[in-house]
Amino acid sequence: MVSRNIPVGFIGLGNMGLPMAKNILKAGYPLTVWNRTVERAEHMARLGAKVSSNPAQLASETSVIITMLSGPSAVQEVVLGSASSPPPVIDGIGPGKVLVDMTTNLPRVSKMVADKICERGGDMLDAPVSGSVKPATEGTLTIMVGGRRETLDRVRPILETMGKKIFHVGGNGDGCSMKLALNMHLGALMASFSESFMFAVKAGLDPKVVLDVFNNTVLRTYISESKGQKIIDGDWSAAFSLGLMAKDLDLVSDTARQMRIPIPITSLVKELYYACVANGKENLDFSAVSTLLEQMGNVKISTR
Amino acid sequence: MVSRNIPVGFIGLGNMGLPMAKNILKAGYPLTVWNRTVERAEHMARLGAKVSSNPAQLASETSVIITMLSGPSAVQEVVLGSASSPPPVIDGIGPGKVLVDMTTNLPRVSKMVADKICERGGDMLDAPVSGSVKPATEGTLTIMVGGRRETLDRVRPILETMGKKIFHVGGNGDGCSMKLALNMHLGALMASFSESFMFAVKAGLDPKVVLDVFNNTVLRTYISESKGQKIIDGDWSAAFSLGLMAKDLDLVSDTARQMRIPIPITSLVKELYYACVANGKENLDFSAVSTLLEQMGNVKISTR
Amino acid sequence: MVSRNIPVGFIGLGNMGLPMAKNILKAGYPLTVWNRTVERAEHMARLGAKVSSNPAQLASETSVIITMLSGPSAVQEVVLGSASSPPPVIDGIGPGKVLVDMTTNLPRVSKMVADKICERGGDMLDAPVSGSVKPATEGTLTIMVGGRRETLDRVRPILETMGKKIFHVGGNGDGCSMKLALNMHLGALMASFSESFMFAVKAGLDPKVVLDVFNNTVLRTYISESKGQKIIDGDWSAAFSLGLMAKDLDLVSDTARQMRIPIPITSLVKELYYACVANGKENLDFSAVSTLLEQMGNVKISTR
Amino acid sequence: MVSRNIPVGFIGLGNMGLPMAKNILKAGYPLTVWNRTVERAEHMARLGAKVSSNPAQLASETSVIITMLSGPSAVQEVVLGSASSPPPVIDGIGPGKVLVDMTTNLPRVSKMVADKICERGGDMLDAPVSGSVKPATEGTLTIMVGGRRETLDRVRPILETMGKKIFHVGGNGDGCSMKLALNMHLGALMASFSESFMFAVKAGLDPKVVLDVFNNTVLRTYISESKGQKIIDGDWSAAFSLGLMAKDLDLVSDTARQMRIPIPITSLVKELYYACVANGKENLDFSAVSTLLEQMGNVKISTR
Repeated sequence: MVSRNIPVGFIGLGNMGLPMAKNILKAGYPLTVWNRTVERAEHMARLGAKVSSNPAQLASETSVIITMLSGPSAVQEVVLGSASSPPPVIDGIGPGKVLVDMTTNLPRVSKMVADKICERGGDMLDAPVSGSVKPATEGTLTIMVGGRRETLDRVRPILETMGKKIFHVGGNGDGCSMKLALNMHLGALMASFSESFMFAVKAGLDPKVVLDVFNNTVLRTYISESKGQKIIDGDWSAAFSLGLMAKDLDLVSDTARQMRIPIPITSLVKELYYACVANGKENLDFSAVSTLLEQMGNVKISTR
Repeated sequence: MVSRNIPVGFIGLGNMGLPMAKNILKAGYPLTVWNRTVERAEHMARLGAKVSSNPAQLASETSVIITMLSGPSAVQEVVLGSASSPPPVIDGIGPGKVLVDMTTNLPRVSKMVADKICERGGDMLDAPVSGSVKPATEGTLTIMVGGRRETLDRVRPILETMGKKIFHVGGNGDGCSMKLALNMHLGALMASFSESFMFAVKAGLDPKVVLDVFNNTVLRTYISESKGQKIIDGDWSAAFSLGLMAKDLDLVSDTARQMRIPIPITSLVKELYYACVANGKENLDFSAVSTLLEQMGNVKISTR
Repeated sequence: MVSRNIPVGFIGLGNMGLPMAKNILKAGYPLTVWNRTVERAEHMARLGAKVSSNPAQLASETSVIITMLSGPSAVQEVVLGSASSPPPVIDGIGPGKVLVDMTTNLPRVSKMVADKICERGGDMLDAPVSGSVKPATEGTLTIMVGGRRETLDRVRPILETMGKKIFHVGGNGDGCSMKLALNMHLGALMASFSESFMFAVKAGLDPKVVLDVFNNTVLRTYISESKGQKIIDGDWSAAFSLGLMAKDLDLVSDTARQMRIPIPITSLVKELYYACVANGKENLDFSAVSTLLEQMGNVKISTR
Repeated sequence: MVSRNIPVGFIGLGNMGLPMAKNILKAGYPLTVWNRTVERAEHMARLGAKVSSNPAQLASETSVIITMLSGPSAVQEVVLGSASSPPPVIDGIGPGKVLVDMTTNLPRVSKMVADKICERGGDMLDAPVSGSVKPATEGTLTIMVGGRRETLDRVRPILETMGKKIFHVGGNGDGCSMKLALNMHLGALMASFSESFMFAVKAGLDPKVVLDVFNNTVLRTYISESKGQKIIDGDWSAAFSLGLMAKDLDLVSDTARQMRIPIPITSLVKELYYACVANGKENLDFSAVSTLLEQMGNVKISTR
């Protein structure tokens, strides 16, 4: 049974990682952190975390190592190392150690890393999250876990400091596949909602009325509820940036190619996000894809 | 104020119209019906409805005439008449009469018919519904109404026998536009869900687990809740047939062309439904679009 | 055998019809014309044509009646008549008369009109053309003919005054189907060329070099040869307007729906043209679809 | 001036590379070859080529090193090396040596490799080819060259043994970009032609007539001429395999993502090829994408 004095390591104090790490610390776990840019690590130090000098050392000093990085190549570099990287996690891995990668990663990369961790006698879980900064801060993320169930049972209490719902979805890499399946649907849902909204407004309906109907029928979704009013307000402050959505859809495409299957809807939708990226909108919220539909239809939903 | 003794006419006793007409009758309104095929009218007669010999006579004998037909051309024929049609509704229209067209109609046709009804001194509402046979039977449809608010106020009690939520969305034709906006999103949502589901299953996840995750995250939608298990079961019994979805998407396209706007996602999605129609699936539920994604990806979600 | 003294009627003196009619007259056929707006008919009168007062009279006075109209609804109105139209062609049709409809028409409308013409003892050919104003003027159009071969043989000398290549492609309506098949490919070819061109220029290549390579490899097409330089020059003077291409693609869609087949590429491409129409580009040449690709990619090919 | 006694190295004796290497040898150049599987190298030895033991040695013994490999990762491995690869080309590069990479490569990989070659005092050209096995054998390939003009001038006589048309299109990587621009158009052209062909045949036209019209109008293209009859014959023997087309379109996507531009048509088209790959058609000719359109439309063009 994992008790609260198990030493935890956390690598990747970004906008998501920082609040996640805080929740682990708050729950009473001894926490060691490492981050490429040192300021955020120092911030955690002031809150009581130990700061490690590199990923290898962090791994050697802790039992459960959590990574929350920008993507597959960052995971490869931090965990397996590269010519120019600091000593990587793998150099500190030995029997009994568990790497929990919470990055939105490629299934194939996740499996490959898991193999190498296992070769050293450790174990790995892929545990990407659904939810953005707010649930990360509140510890209410959804976590989709791939890997051995026994390993998940060991680290579950740690995960529970960050997430409310924890799904064991299969073996190594399957957490990543599940995450990508959710995000490809999310991306399409957002774009389709924008197109429908644009259609109705072009037909002459009041945007507020349109949104009200969406939110009071079977077409009510997370998107209509959380993004509809923002589209009306022209409020593109990013909860989940358009650039990150585009990047996630690239991971979906890469994985579909690996599996040799077509994904026609995702493919079209991805191009719409990239038309936004090409026009300087990558730092806006991903709901700003609606501005492309507006532009293509020469319609204005937003009253701003 | 409209009281329960206002004579109501109902034309179009199809799978949706029949239970809707029953609900009006059950609420105590004197009801006159007409239907192209006489059996269903006789069924209503046995329940206490009067059967009229043609649409014109029905209109002349009632105050509020409701039409629930197969589409725009049926509305034109029944309401305005054609060389081969029986005397049409318009011949019985005069001051004070209200036509409530609940058909999923084209906005432009609805506006054109409204103009002609008004020329005769009557008034018209377009009041298409969201929901299929079950809510039609239970009187819990969602009704989106276009037309004059005063007219809606007059007929609202009648509509309330059929629907739980009644939205006044704008002027003539706007009810139709709103309905089409909902259905274009519904069609895309269904197809995108299928694609994501197929992706996850191809990646090796258990379909039941995938569905469970969808239904317990922000990606939970009407589609994941009502169609997900049916996809797993390979149960294509039609609540809303694929052929009707394809037809509705054609109405969306027609309207987009009228408004001269692009609808790229709907257009692609429509082709996927038509690939199913071309292969004999039009009478299956519209969720059977998932079988096309399965086929394209050479994946089997359904365990049946 | 048809000799040069067979009386020919011509209806529809638009940008295409006018030079086509002139070529018939020039070849020595006695020509009677009718046009909705009278100026162009008077222009033909000055060249020696007789002007008829309405389509019915024109048909009664001539043996071969040619129509070159804006589309299916114009054909229905002029040939079959409507409440508000002048006496239609059909009222002048009798045994031995041939209607040659050169309009880009819907196959189903063409077949329906042919049936009615035949009921009166006449015969009909659909004979849409490939080529724009220049070949229409020079008498070098390509003509795709649907209908009975004997009837084509009778009118072939007349068609040869307008076109260099005359294909008998099948029965009634098949000329229209062939025309639509060509134009759906043309529309896709234009859009795909634009996308490839945009890609190469964004990659940093000189537009002139890119075009030179296209025109000297197996990717040389009518589009690369006739439109490539115009894209570089930003010259959108219309040989075939973008609005007409969008309209033709609508006829393709309508026909695909009739046949219940999917046309995924055409559907996407059509939306791209409509995004241009929505933004005021319908009167530019259809090659201006490249400006949408430029805009979506934030790239500038044209040096203008 | 490069004379015929300049020692040339050739790496990658695949279906394309083998006949290309033979043409160099035939022209009288002293040729050294290396190939992963030794049989093809031995075949070249019997024709008079020297066989080198590894890429590094080949590079040290020759002045112009040509690579014709399966793709970007093969180029990286053979030229720059990896943990498990034999000594790479770069170890034999020094001042005056020229690497000519004729692989269909990613522009970004090509530029990166060029940088490393230049650091060693050598120079690099990317020189991908257009054309398949037949022109490779006949020495009539089209070659698109990126890199310094002076370097191209030095190796031009060698390239002329393999190709008839040699275009200098820009700096390092630009040859690759040009090649990808051609192939994205080729892929779309093929798929669109298939869709149009399917449309016409479904409308009832004779496939032979349809093809005849295509080949005698402005819609005549390399595809209609070289693939139309094969579609009718159901002859999918591969000149350029569907799997390779899919792979090339992936390189296009990767590059578009790198440049952050949308390529909507290519994206859709790519999914159609992948639907074929998913269903076991990757070794057929890429024209077999027509069978997917046939299947989606439930139409049969091929009479086989």
